Amino acid sequence: MNAEIIAIGTELLLGFVVNTDTVFLGRALAGLGIDCYHQVTVGDNPRRLAETIQTALHRADLVITCGGLGPTVDDVTLETIARVSGKPLQLNSAILRQIKNRFRKSGIRMPQSNRRQALIPQGAAVFPNPIGTAPGFLLPIRIGGRRKLIAALPGPPAELIPMTEKFLIPRLQRFTGKTLIRSRTLKVTGITESEVDAKVRGILAMNGAVTVGIYAHPSQIDLRITAKAQTGRAADRLVAGVEAKIRRRLGNLLFGADEETLEGTVGKLLKKNRLTLGAAESCTGGLVQHRLTEVPGSSDYLLGGLVSYSNRLKSSALGVPADLLKKYGAVSPQTAGAMARGIRRMTGADLGLALTGIAGPTGGTKKKPVGLVYIALSDSSSTVVKRHEFPGDRSMVKFRASQAALNWLRLRLLNDRSS
Amino acid sequence: MNAEIIAIGTELLLGFVVNTDTVFLGRALAGLGIDCYHQVTVGDNPRRLAETIQTALHRADLVITCGGLGPTVDDVTLETIARVSGKPLQLNSAILRQIKNRFRKSGIRMPQSNRRQALIPQGAAVFPNPIGTAPGFLLPIRIGGRRKLIAALPGPPAELIPMTEKFLIPRLQRFTGKTLIRSRTLKVTGITESEVDAKVRGILAMNGAVTVGIYAHPSQIDLRITAKAQTGRAADRLVAGVEAKIRRRLGNLLFGADEETLEGTVGKLLKKNRLTLGAAESCTGGLVQHRLTEVPGSSDYLLGGLVSYSNRLKSSALGVPADLLKKYGAVSPQTAGAMARGIRRMTGADLGLALTGIAGPTGGTKKKPVGLVYIALSDSSSTVVKRHEFPGDRSMVKFRASQAALNWLRLRLLNDRSS
Repeated sequence: MNAEIIAIGTELLLGFVVNTDTVFLGRALAGLGIDCYHQVTVGDNPRRLAETIQTALHRADLVITCGGLGPTVDDVTLETIARVSGKPLQLNSAILRQIKNRFRKSGIRMPQSNRRQALIPQGAAVFPNPIGTAPGFLLPIRIGGRRKLIAALPGPPAELIPMTEKFLIPRLQRFTGKTLIRSRTLKVTGITESEVDAKVRGILAMNGAVTVGIYAHPSQIDLRITAKAQTGRAADRLVAGVEAKIRRRLGNLLFGADEETLEGTVGKLLKKNRLTLGAAESCTGGLVQHRLTEVPGSSDYLLGGLVSYSNRLKSSALGVPADLLKKYGAVSPQTAGAMARGIRRMTGADLGLALTGIAGPTGGTKKKPVGLVYIALSDSSSTVVKRHEFPGDRSMVKFRASQAALNWLRLRLLNDRSS
Repeated sequence: MNAEIIAIGTELLLGFVVNTDTVFLGRALAGLGIDCYHQVTVGDNPRRLAETIQTALHRADLVITCGGLGPTVDDVTLETIARVSGKPLQLNSAILRQIKNRFRKSGIRMPQSNRRQALIPQGAAVFPNPIGTAPGFLLPIRIGGRRKLIAALPGPPAELIPMTEKFLIPRLQRFTGKTLIRSRTLKVTGITESEVDAKVRGILAMNGAVTVGIYAHPSQIDLRITAKAQTGRAADRLVAGVEAKIRRRLGNLLFGADEETLEGTVGKLLKKNRLTLGAAESCTGGLVQHRLTEVPGSSDYLLGGLVSYSNRLKSSALGVPADLLKKYGAVSPQTAGAMARGIRRMTGADLGLALTGIAGPTGGTKKKPVGLVYIALSDSSSTVVKRHEFPGDRSMVKFRASQAALNWLRLRLLNDRSS
């Protein structure tokens, strides 16, 4: 089985939006062992979309369209698929009810235009959309005596991803044959791409059924292991063998795999150690706590904390002495330490984490440049402060500082002596 | 003139890499007034690449390829373009010298495979690559008596972007004559896509030199105005005319244009009104303050605030009475109001903003479902609380709540009576 992905939207052609749908679908298809030879982006133009779908149906068994299912006039996917496939649109009363319900809940009268979203080509299996109003569908058709499938998905990733995972992938698994691809991504932070490369060299050069790729992101390196085999279990075994080798080389530098996040791993370790955390953030402005609270159940260990942008708040709420602030400045190891102790006291948490620094673009000096961040960690016995200098713009300094703080916390919770 | 972009690389099809080249090129072409109707991604496969280039040459005047110019065997772009265009590859001694120099500088012996990168199809204009080894080129050819152009660019954005800006765009300007495209994006939050659609209908249906597209994001709708004209000034005037019409219809619903963000607009309004803000976040876990502090200079008006995940912190730091918490619960209009008053007091800010809700996935009840969020805004004279129910997963509820809170604050600062 092979597939072709069609991303629909003039905004994509104009470079107005980055297309992440095809990235997600490319990975999903690879995971199913479905080859994808072409991905095409086309605008909201019925004639060109029809031609693109026809070309795709000619060379692929499965054609996946993303986008153009909305309620407005420039959403042309539904009508075009109906026309190309020869399957007329029919009003699906169950979907119409769901759309009406969604509007009722938000207390808004359903505009007439949203009725269109309850139309589905004859014979299609409907994929409900729990987030938006546009449902997706899978439509089996015959072209020149051959079976083909058209899957139509909504464009917004927040809708496309759960719909693919919940409905499209399980349906496709009924059709896919025997070659299976499995892959796993191991995640590292705290060292550079070249350092990772030096540590895993040799493993990367291996040939055959398993490959390893290195992909660098800001303050994070991913190692992607991919294996092909006749069965899922055999592919899993190949992946697991290489993973074990990489784990021996990288040890605690690895913070997670696949969908695991650094904040999720920190959360698990806090839970396992039955420890609670309070955070005082100056330069990161709440980002560390925002990341920690992205994890379901984080209220079990994150008691909360302070975003102490003003010096007054550093003194009044955290008890950082005014003369210390005056003598060393808000961005100093002394203030960072006092903030960590203060937030521990204020929240009653086992651990106090504090960040103070200069996110930029202004406010830097020769002695205290933009990117300088002090991170402090305090427990019942001691307070340790680390100095960092992060490259990048304001947003990047904030992110890198949050990454360094969470990673340090992780290593401390693992009792890593290097931390 | 119209163009087609071909992105080459199996890693793109597998979703290992996000394709940002096409985003950059899409914008560059739009800026030149060159229409782009198709973007195609294809793997490192000579036959399929040849077919893709042939199809593109058939329907576009300019075909831009990205990637596949490297020194390894899976880099097939050069040979394929030579074959499809009928222009044999010739060794370019100037390029070979540059490549040898690059290797000499880094103290590495040039591998024989890099010689291949000095090959260029006959008649092509070479684009030097100051960052990598692979040069690009622009190749004029004739197909069926019609003039066509093939531009070949390296895949890494760090090489493609400067090469496009320095060499491709100036060359294309010789062909594009005078049509220029200008566009502007207006941003709305607080109403649905269909409501926006209903309000601006008529403006959208306009034909001719100006088009308006609607693009829905979570809790945000973008309206993109695009105009074509003989000069930049004329195009700007067309855009401004339609923008004025849309502004009359949408008024305060619009929170910004182009690169402006909701948090940036809120910041400007706080600054203009000389008001300071303190925030108490429960369910959003710091996201509102993280967003506000993404704006340079936000320390002028954001004094800081609290992430009060625990009830204890709500009482001890914010002074929310324990019996109130007990009687109405942490997620209640009473608690939200007390939090907003408390954070105003604690930070000494003019305005206190508070959010409390159930981000999920657990913790919801029939009376207080996942997605329920109370937002409170307090100033010296009053405290107002609003009830919201947001759809989506934990992350989405957090984002939508932050969006609603910031937008409410914006409308209050504008003295909008509907807020």
